[in-house]
Amino acid sequence: MYSFNNDYSEGAHPRILETMIHTNLEQNNGYSMDSHTAHAIALIKKEIGREDADIHCIVGGTQTNALVIDAALRPHQAVICACTGHINVHETGAIEATGHKVIAMESPDGKVTTEMIQKALDWHSDEHMVQPKMVYISNTTEIGTQYSKAELETLSQYCRQHGLYLFMDGARLAAALTSPINDLTAADIARLTDVFYFGGTKNGALFGEALVILHPDLKSDFRFLIKQHGAMLAKGWLLGIQFETLFTDGLYYELGSHANAMAAILKKGIEDLGYTFTSDSHSNQLFPIFPDHVIDELAKDFLFSANGRIDETHSSVRLVTSWATKESAVHEFLQKLGALTV
Amino acid sequence: MYSFNNDYSEGAHPRILETMIHTNLEQNNGYSMDSHTAHAIALIKKEIGREDADIHCIVGGTQTNALVIDAALRPHQAVICACTGHINVHETGAIEATGHKVIAMESPDGKVTTEMIQKALDWHSDEHMVQPKMVYISNTTEIGTQYSKAELETLSQYCRQHGLYLFMDGARLAAALTSPINDLTAADIARLTDVFYFGGTKNGALFGEALVILHPDLKSDFRFLIKQHGAMLAKGWLLGIQFETLFTDGLYYELGSHANAMAAILKKGIEDLGYTFTSDSHSNQLFPIFPDHVIDELAKDFLFSANGRIDETHSSVRLVTSWATKESAVHEFLQKLGALTV
Amino acid sequence: MYSFNNDYSEGAHPRILETMIHTNLEQNNGYSMDSHTAHAIALIKKEIGREDADIHCIVGGTQTNALVIDAALRPHQAVICACTGHINVHETGAIEATGHKVIAMESPDGKVTTEMIQKALDWHSDEHMVQPKMVYISNTTEIGTQYSKAELETLSQYCRQHGLYLFMDGARLAAALTSPINDLTAADIARLTDVFYFGGTKNGALFGEALVILHPDLKSDFRFLIKQHGAMLAKGWLLGIQFETLFTDGLYYELGSHANAMAAILKKGIEDLGYTFTSDSHSNQLFPIFPDHVIDELAKDFLFSANGRIDETHSSVRLVTSWATKESAVHEFLQKLGALTV
Amino acid sequence: MYSFNNDYSEGAHPRILETMIHTNLEQNNGYSMDSHTAHAIALIKKEIGREDADIHCIVGGTQTNALVIDAALRPHQAVICACTGHINVHETGAIEATGHKVIAMESPDGKVTTEMIQKALDWHSDEHMVQPKMVYISNTTEIGTQYSKAELETLSQYCRQHGLYLFMDGARLAAALTSPINDLTAADIARLTDVFYFGGTKNGALFGEALVILHPDLKSDFRFLIKQHGAMLAKGWLLGIQFETLFTDGLYYELGSHANAMAAILKKGIEDLGYTFTSDSHSNQLFPIFPDHVIDELAKDFLFSANGRIDETHSSVRLVTSWATKESAVHEFLQKLGALTV
Repeated sequence: MYSFNNDYSEGAHPRILETMIHTNLEQNNGYSMDSHTAHAIALIKKEIGREDADIHCIVGGTQTNALVIDAALRPHQAVICACTGHINVHETGAIEATGHKVIAMESPDGKVTTEMIQKALDWHSDEHMVQPKMVYISNTTEIGTQYSKAELETLSQYCRQHGLYLFMDGARLAAALTSPINDLTAADIARLTDVFYFGGTKNGALFGEALVILHPDLKSDFRFLIKQHGAMLAKGWLLGIQFETLFTDGLYYELGSHANAMAAILKKGIEDLGYTFTSDSHSNQLFPIFPDHVIDELAKDFLFSANGRIDETHSSVRLVTSWATKESAVHEFLQKLGALTV
Repeated sequence: MYSFNNDYSEGAHPRILETMIHTNLEQNNGYSMDSHTAHAIALIKKEIGREDADIHCIVGGTQTNALVIDAALRPHQAVICACTGHINVHETGAIEATGHKVIAMESPDGKVTTEMIQKALDWHSDEHMVQPKMVYISNTTEIGTQYSKAELETLSQYCRQHGLYLFMDGARLAAALTSPINDLTAADIARLTDVFYFGGTKNGALFGEALVILHPDLKSDFRFLIKQHGAMLAKGWLLGIQFETLFTDGLYYELGSHANAMAAILKKGIEDLGYTFTSDSHSNQLFPIFPDHVIDELAKDFLFSANGRIDETHSSVRLVTSWATKESAVHEFLQKLGALTV
Repeated sequence: MYSFNNDYSEGAHPRILETMIHTNLEQNNGYSMDSHTAHAIALIKKEIGREDADIHCIVGGTQTNALVIDAALRPHQAVICACTGHINVHETGAIEATGHKVIAMESPDGKVTTEMIQKALDWHSDEHMVQPKMVYISNTTEIGTQYSKAELETLSQYCRQHGLYLFMDGARLAAALTSPINDLTAADIARLTDVFYFGGTKNGALFGEALVILHPDLKSDFRFLIKQHGAMLAKGWLLGIQFETLFTDGLYYELGSHANAMAAILKKGIEDLGYTFTSDSHSNQLFPIFPDHVIDELAKDFLFSANGRIDETHSSVRLVTSWATKESAVHEFLQKLGALTV
Repeated sequence: MYSFNNDYSEGAHPRILETMIHTNLEQNNGYSMDSHTAHAIALIKKEIGREDADIHCIVGGTQTNALVIDAALRPHQAVICACTGHINVHETGAIEATGHKVIAMESPDGKVTTEMIQKALDWHSDEHMVQPKMVYISNTTEIGTQYSKAELETLSQYCRQHGLYLFMDGARLAAALTSPINDLTAADIARLTDVFYFGGTKNGALFGEALVILHPDLKSDFRFLIKQHGAMLAKGWLLGIQFETLFTDGLYYELGSHANAMAAILKKGIEDLGYTFTSDSHSNQLFPIFPDHVIDELAKDFLFSANGRIDETHSSVRLVTSWATKESAVHEFLQKLGALTV
């Protein structure tokens, strides 16, 4: 049984593990006040060309999203996102638990547009309604799509004109930045958003998201919020070690590239067999439509998740590749799919 | 300038004011532990035929909604409502401020159906998502529609089968119960819901909603929640006095009937002039569509609120009648509308 | 049975009721956007000599306290108060319900000093602890004591030097400002605090607290917070009417004076009989110590609350006078006490 | 520079690291639904002799505390603890952020007694105050003291009689259970508390606390709460691996014993030099009192934290040993201290 279920099914990239082994008996200051974290932060600042950024390494994505939104918004303020946004559907109301409404807008491709934001602003006109103050986007999105530079420029400009913070969830930022259709750099993202993160969990770390805060208003007292959210890791250098490894010699991008390359092979193979997809993805998540009996057969050898019923006899599934995906497994999948396809 | 802007533009029905005057220098126990409140509660219990109900008089509707939902739900649980639901759009995120997600379902007529609830349940399948635990409905709805007995029976049965609390916002329950198309009694509502309220603010009280808790699980420690929400009125007998007056000699229904009767005249007059409505209301809120220039002219003599653009030259408005609406004002409105209609 | 149980046992001062009667059928804009509220605000601005103040009329005290603190603090920030502070003991955790810690400091006389604040600041030194950001004081305090001008000047200066907001709960501000030992004016309080309120509930209104926001940082979007807290009264002019009456012809002070005068007679009489008090009050709350058997006898004719056991045979009680207290009742109390005193 | 600053200055015990290395490229189900976690849970159930326990592995202590308290309490309920309790002082208001008041009672030795709880219950008598519903204790406490079996029996019986949940924070449970004065077993703790945890972070794990829920009322939907708190680790088997290693061949106790043994040497040496301690600890945290100049000198070679000023020339410090503390470092410390002591 081989798993294409997600991009966090294996441990860490061996280089990360090695650094952890070598440093295991070092005595380090706790709570991310250690030299590894300082080094990781320096590397990330260099990567984005922004010495003024505040950078914090956090254990997980849901935690990071709740933290950022809680820190940024006053009690009556709300965050706009696509209806498919992770904060809207897959975080068990973590944002609402901090007191804030998620304004979820219909979106065919998982992306947010200025039209959607304008609509949300139009609907929220006075003090009887929440006040939209932040826009949350994911790159890549939850359905594998991604933002072009032009799209992000437009969003950014719009948000700045309307006093909205722009927050990019980068849980799969490595996949986005190394996608063949990408034209954004990390520096662009730092320039165009107010806060974003480099996801580690889904790109070869044991865990960890490197949060980059650009907007001065969002920086203040952030460590208090981290602690209050139970997100301040005692042995914080474990996060530092992982990000200093990922941002040394381009490992972060190398791992994202591998995941995308595996997905590209998978995608071409599936297309060649005549199947279509529910989402136009050029990254490490694919959403092919298969006949139900084909899915049943594939499920005997491969782990993946159901995504939705298409018609009486067809469904879509989600296939995810990662830094650890073996090319041989991809070929085995395609071979089996070929055999099942008449 | 005459106002059809809402049903809370005047003070209290004279009988309420009189009782307040006569009792003004009585010394009463604070915090609703007084004899007027006890009397009001007894009258309401009799009205619904339920000695087992717990009844609390609360100052306002948003307060009552937040209170009930906060008391009923555990942190990970959510409330389902129509997208037009008051808790979803007009309470500045008061529900989310208590930590709970509002799952708003598309609804063409402002009502919730079992199909909508089923869809919401289907979408929320595991611990990565909030857990729906309550269904919120308004009667009449925010767009003037209302539930039939058959509809409420169906909803109630479905909710009980699925372990969902059914909560009816009765801010305009007087209008619902006295509508010509109504076939529900207060006793039916007590039998079919788990918690509901008789709205006073929009039916001749200075303020006040009489909350009726039927489901035993929702009763426990409720006064703690009232206090914590800042909803425990020091001079609580003011609420008691109002509800004992409203539930004496049928005043509650008399006032609702008047509001509906005024709306019926308005509705017939508007229809006779050839106009249509965005919502099929038989209660005290009407949503006619007029040409923009007609609206501009009407607005010179009457206060009402815009409701939405229909096309380039037409918009809908909201006209609300109340216990205090003068029939002469209704006729003046129709006369002016007639004059503006070619 | 006559009640000295609290200062909110009767309805409203007759002048307030009269205004409510005269204006009852006026059509007013809802949600405090009416002319009575505008007038009340103008009168209060004049009273404090501060055209720049933002003033909001809110229904109750617990509500106002939660609202102000929630609006002022970021999630990791806390409010310092005396351990006897209303927000610490008598609001069912309403402040914590908005997410904020109440840092309660031991205080012998119910007042906060700069030494206490300094201690609280010393204890909260880094991001592993909450960050004190506001100081809450009550005037008069919950045990009838009050701040002198010199004390308030000192507190104010200290708070400004340390970046702390100073918030005065004025539920019993009328009693404070009309106490024989008072040397503060309303204008002084506006100058020395960042936010405070004129309590109406405990000084002759049916309900209502007039909140005065002086510090610019606390003004922004305040109406959103009012609405979210369920504190925006639909018929908001009822609050306006009450405060415009109270701030016309000095009624606010007249009522406070009466309450204090009644307490002074009571105090002198009790002292003359040889009893002592647990608290040095010159306002409308007295805390005499009586033998238990005397208390039992008094309780047959008078309502008051127990306050604490002193020794095996003595307890303290709380006696409260108000704008409505009858002088004859005071004399009856003293007469009975005299008869019980050997 | 050698650190006695805390018990989480090094990485993981080598056996844990080895297991992580060997399993690194295994594909595991995410979110703690993996076989390592299942194994760890089985081992812990066996350890406490309770097949009915619900066990969840969580990343950190503050997170676990907030999670448990949030899951257990209704909005108006509060948790009682010693004033030194971690939840009261060192979690940046994480408990209050979930809406609950922490009722902190004075405690000379960091422990909670039934007298303290009774006092807290006496103070909270009605719905104007929060309702105490849980008692939080730490074992060992934040100042190194610990509960005897008799003490825990008494507390447990009292809590059950009064309907209070008893929650033991076991961040340093290994130190408690292996202390020379301990007479409690893990099974005793499972029998006497409603919920507790085996701390991993401070006992040789990279991170992790194994939460054991005994009381049926606290079990329901717990994974929803974990997710909502951002505490559901994607690669959850990392927690499973650590606890299955710790609970194999008694490693958990072996590591606690080492920490305590190192502290015992340190304690005896310090006592022999004539110094005293602020707290009577028989576990891995010591609080000696030294002259300030001695502290300054020690600080040149050793890292430790200041704990409080004793008098003009003396302060107390906190020395912490761990599973990783080298005996040689302990002797070096004592040697230097000896040299500084005349």
